[in-house]
Amino acid sequence: MSFALPSIPDLSQAELARSLQHLIDHKTKPLGALGQLETLGRQLGLIQSRLDPQLVQPQMVVFAGDHGLAARGVSAYPSDVTWQMVENFLAGVAAVSVLARQHGLALTVVDAGVAHDFAPRAGLQIRKVAPGTADSSRQAAMSTAQCEQAIEQGQEVIRSLPGNTVLLGEMGIGNTSSATLLMARLLGEPLLACAGRGTGLDDTAYQRKLDILREVLSLHVDAVTPMATLAAFGGFEIAMMVGAILQAAAENRVIVVDGFITSSAVLVASRMQPLVLQRCVFAHQSDESGHALLLKHLNAKPLLKLNLRLGEGSGAALAWPLLESACRILREMASFEAAGVSSSDQDAGERPADEA
Amino acid sequence: MSFALPSIPDLSQAELARSLQHLIDHKTKPLGALGQLETLGRQLGLIQSRLDPQLVQPQMVVFAGDHGLAARGVSAYPSDVTWQMVENFLAGVAAVSVLARQHGLALTVVDAGVAHDFAPRAGLQIRKVAPGTADSSRQAAMSTAQCEQAIEQGQEVIRSLPGNTVLLGEMGIGNTSSATLLMARLLGEPLLACAGRGTGLDDTAYQRKLDILREVLSLHVDAVTPMATLAAFGGFEIAMMVGAILQAAAENRVIVVDGFITSSAVLVASRMQPLVLQRCVFAHQSDESGHALLLKHLNAKPLLKLNLRLGEGSGAALAWPLLESACRILREMASFEAAGVSSSDQDAGERPADEA
Repeated sequence: MSFALPSIPDLSQAELARSLQHLIDHKTKPLGALGQLETLGRQLGLIQSRLDPQLVQPQMVVFAGDHGLAARGVSAYPSDVTWQMVENFLAGVAAVSVLARQHGLALTVVDAGVAHDFAPRAGLQIRKVAPGTADSSRQAAMSTAQCEQAIEQGQEVIRSLPGNTVLLGEMGIGNTSSATLLMARLLGEPLLACAGRGTGLDDTAYQRKLDILREVLSLHVDAVTPMATLAAFGGFEIAMMVGAILQAAAENRVIVVDGFITSSAVLVASRMQPLVLQRCVFAHQSDESGHALLLKHLNAKPLLKLNLRLGEGSGAALAWPLLESACRILREMASFEAAGVSSSDQDAGERPADEA
Repeated sequence: MSFALPSIPDLSQAELARSLQHLIDHKTKPLGALGQLETLGRQLGLIQSRLDPQLVQPQMVVFAGDHGLAARGVSAYPSDVTWQMVENFLAGVAAVSVLARQHGLALTVVDAGVAHDFAPRAGLQIRKVAPGTADSSRQAAMSTAQCEQAIEQGQEVIRSLPGNTVLLGEMGIGNTSSATLLMARLLGEPLLACAGRGTGLDDTAYQRKLDILREVLSLHVDAVTPMATLAAFGGFEIAMMVGAILQAAAENRVIVVDGFITSSAVLVASRMQPLVLQRCVFAHQSDESGHALLLKHLNAKPLLKLNLRLGEGSGAALAWPLLESACRILREMASFEAAGVSSSDQDAGERPADEA
């Protein structure tokens, strides 16, 4: 492999973890009463190596690409919807645009390989590897060179953006099939446990999708490494997200992971560099049936479970204020001592003398 | 009963509901792909009788009160923590203060019956019925007159505040016991299914709490109406929330319900006027074990499940941006037709001709 993986430091800093826990436990609330928000605060502190993490210039990045396999009818929508939705994102009227605007998230759309020529404009990065991947039921979705190029372009995207936090989303008609295939192969899970109905297939169409995916899996039985699997099943937007995840992790950015497709990119990246997972915050559990299983394999506890199955980064945007809250709790909430509030009898014995 | 229940209109407007569904289904996303956010958008539209609901001047109101039963040791914390936390809320350094500030929610703290004299100041409404309820293991927590006074004061609180949305929270050492007793009696569920560990009891303390609650239930075996049950088990902050819920519902305000204690107030209010539930948005499912069962009885699907067990309104504040998102999706997202995006083959047949 010519592609050089960035080095990613281990964030398991026992002393900082203890200090963060001490800080959280002494806030004016019962021990553990802020649940997952406390876990999130600890994680953000560890990523930023500080007791008062702060999320600066958060970047929502949506990677778009087309899929040769879509011609086989694995999606309820035609491939044209990919470029139409990119226009929709840029026009500010898609779900992710609306939610990004609500939360003050800068939105960048990346053409990773859409079968359409876009006019250049602000907020769009044209990094097209090719106008759509090849049909993975006939050949590998991408060549190794294309796959590496896509990963490198994903790294470039991150390098081009300011801030210490990225939220990742995607658009690509047919990409739930790619995510399903990546998951089935890399996790060794049966196809039926990984494959869902995408953005809305009826029973007949779903059965046809399963048959096609089985065919694709058996055609690429030799693809077992993360890179070969990614090249075999595609797509460009997923490969570019893999690069973005590796780069963002190397820079210790917080990575907010959207739904099923984005999680499949995390799976691939984590098979290349397991420590990327320390930087990942999983925004939500999708309604897409394989996602719960994928999250379990990634040892991830998502923040939201709202029966979303849209992609685009919409779940990441919806979860965003929770990350902000976790930081503010650490920074702005008083300790029992500072506030003059009595702690519980039970807690008192467990608490070491306060530092302040 | 001398207390006059406000009249609450039925929001089941079939035509508006159809129009809202039509609007949502024609947004540029697969049918149903925004999951619970779509349900929420429909509900907000119905509450406000419009296709473009808007949340104006949202008010976070935290009701505080003390409990005579707390002297029996049903909480891990001493009663003094109630007033200390009220000071903490007002100082802007408690969890709910931090979260309200993050989201631009006006915060009002109501002294419903705290055993402490507060200095008057901005953001504090002193509506004390008495300095704490009576010990419900010896007599009713409040007299009928006190209970009615508390409900009326809760109505007054809502009348005193601007805006079309309220978020309700509470503080009161011992009030998980009141909520548990209200739930056990009004739902006829066994105590063990309703009683949790509050803000953190160990096994011995939890067993003692169960014994005391059983004793209280049998002392007030005749309390079966919503009002009598509320008077028997308390507390002032719960009764005031009942009044706030009835009044906010009568004014068609959106009511964002926090955790277990606030939900118990909704239970009582809904037994007086079932239509209040049409206006309630359930923010989260608490880690307090009875809450899941209570929500099930209220036919409520909470937005968040983050293992919170703090109260204060913290869960309501955390869920707040999701309500904003639901409104913005309705108002700002394009339709397939407006955006020039192809819809799916499957959807096409189901869609009626567009109005625009």
